[in-house]
Amino acid sequence: MPQDPFQQKKDSILAEIRSSETDLSPKGTIDELCLPIMDLINSHKDMVTTSSCSGRVSVFVEGNKVHEKSLKTGGKGEGGRWLFVTHDYTALPSWMDKFRHEIEFDTEFKETLTPSKRYILYKFEPFILHVKCRDFQSASKLFNAAMSCGFRESGIGSNNIVALRINIKLDIPIGYLNEATSRLVFFVNEKYIELIDGLALGKFKENTRKMKELYQIIENQIINPEITTKSTKVIETKEERRERKRREGLLKQRMLLETQNADLMEELNETP
Amino acid sequence: MPQDPFQQKKDSILAEIRSSETDLSPKGTIDELCLPIMDLINSHKDMVTTSSCSGRVSVFVEGNKVHEKSLKTGGKGEGGRWLFVTHDYTALPSWMDKFRHEIEFDTEFKETLTPSKRYILYKFEPFILHVKCRDFQSASKLFNAAMSCGFRESGIGSNNIVALRINIKLDIPIGYLNEATSRLVFFVNEKYIELIDGLALGKFKENTRKMKELYQIIENQIINPEITTKSTKVIETKEERRERKRREGLLKQRMLLETQNADLMEELNETP
Repeated sequence: MPQDPFQQKKDSILAEIRSSETDLSPKGTIDELCLPIMDLINSHKDMVTTSSCSGRVSVFVEGNKVHEKSLKTGGKGEGGRWLFVTHDYTALPSWMDKFRHEIEFDTEFKETLTPSKRYILYKFEPFILHVKCRDFQSASKLFNAAMSCGFRESGIGSNNIVALRINIKLDIPIGYLNEATSRLVFFVNEKYIELIDGLALGKFKENTRKMKELYQIIENQIINPEITTKSTKVIETKEERRERKRREGLLKQRMLLETQNADLMEELNETP
Repeated sequence: MPQDPFQQKKDSILAEIRSSETDLSPKGTIDELCLPIMDLINSHKDMVTTSSCSGRVSVFVEGNKVHEKSLKTGGKGEGGRWLFVTHDYTALPSWMDKFRHEIEFDTEFKETLTPSKRYILYKFEPFILHVKCRDFQSASKLFNAAMSCGFRESGIGSNNIVALRINIKLDIPIGYLNEATSRLVFFVNEKYIELIDGLALGKFKENTRKMKELYQIIENQIINPEITTKSTKVIETKEERRERKRREGLLKQRMLLETQNADLMEELNETP
């Protein structure tokens, strides 16, 4: 039997995934919302998923800025503190409970805040998946499927690894650490937090909807295009056929709109 | 003389760029901060830039949500209204002036805000550049150069078009449109606006620094690697050589740190 280096690599990656699935601790496990699409992709002989995140909300205090020359904001960084991380939208409403005693609201603050303060950031980051493909041809196929359903920030990288990415984000400074008192000072009120929790919930939903769309497109275009066609030919009644045609038409329309919308967004990005 | 389809395509794209450069209206011109890196890349026989944005701040009211089934937030959408767009950080401080008479501050709002409201969003979006390459080999070279200096969201797409992307963002809801009164209701105060203007300024600076790094890496690795080495051999003194070696060491170190940091971030994304 001839050796197949890609299959060997794939087997070892999948073995690792399986071992982390059986690890029941919250840290280190594969994010379970990703499992269906990972399983689907891994059922293809030329593809293997290498890393994933199903989407998450995180809240953290930025790290120490004293020794940094350029005052970058936006990352946790060294000395930063996680206040909250979740992939599960049902955990959103109560995220402040654990450190509520450390919070101070100051919505009418009058001082000028400099970038050297350690800000508290509230972020939504969407689904992302990396897939190693056997060759450029299979990588292209996957890339094109993703682009056709709105994963506009996807791209092929080194070693035929495709990154599937979408642009659904929030990135909001909600307060800062008062280093003298160690209090978490929020410059937004609780209703604002409720509002952005609501927006984040909307992002989670949109994100899940896009994951499902991606699943469907990968299944129909890549995993079993013949089986899909064949089975519908065999089993469907006239009405089912009409319904299928209607759905296909709607899907095409939606994809067209999505493309037009994305083109428009791109154009706006270029020449605002 | 043999035909060269890539060169023909490149000539036509460059002719278009030149004609938009001479167009002096604010809309439709190439964002001038991108010109140096575009010129550099276009000096390579196998590459041509196809679209660009140097980075910008935008503030807008979301479009009509009445007829939308899923209440997506985050885009301007149909019926939305631009309040402000700039690529120029010096324009930031006075962005509210034009519609100050329409604004109402309500930092102590008590009502629960639903996703169906038309929110006012404040965004920073970073530099992005698309480059069409002659073949996959030249696309890979450009992709690898970008990844090595922190453009971690880059990717190769269809037709060997490389997207050079970095993750420096802000995406903040600052208010909503009161549709009854047509007023712009801000749920943050002016000091908060001042703060996020300051953060956006920091993002502009970081963005420019990363553009310069990318320029340097593309110049050294792709445009004239031999010339760089040769000319330093010919003209440099012992001290200059020592200084160059020191700089190269620092650059390597920084790139290593960047990679480690990016790996760490990726790990955090996977298993928070």
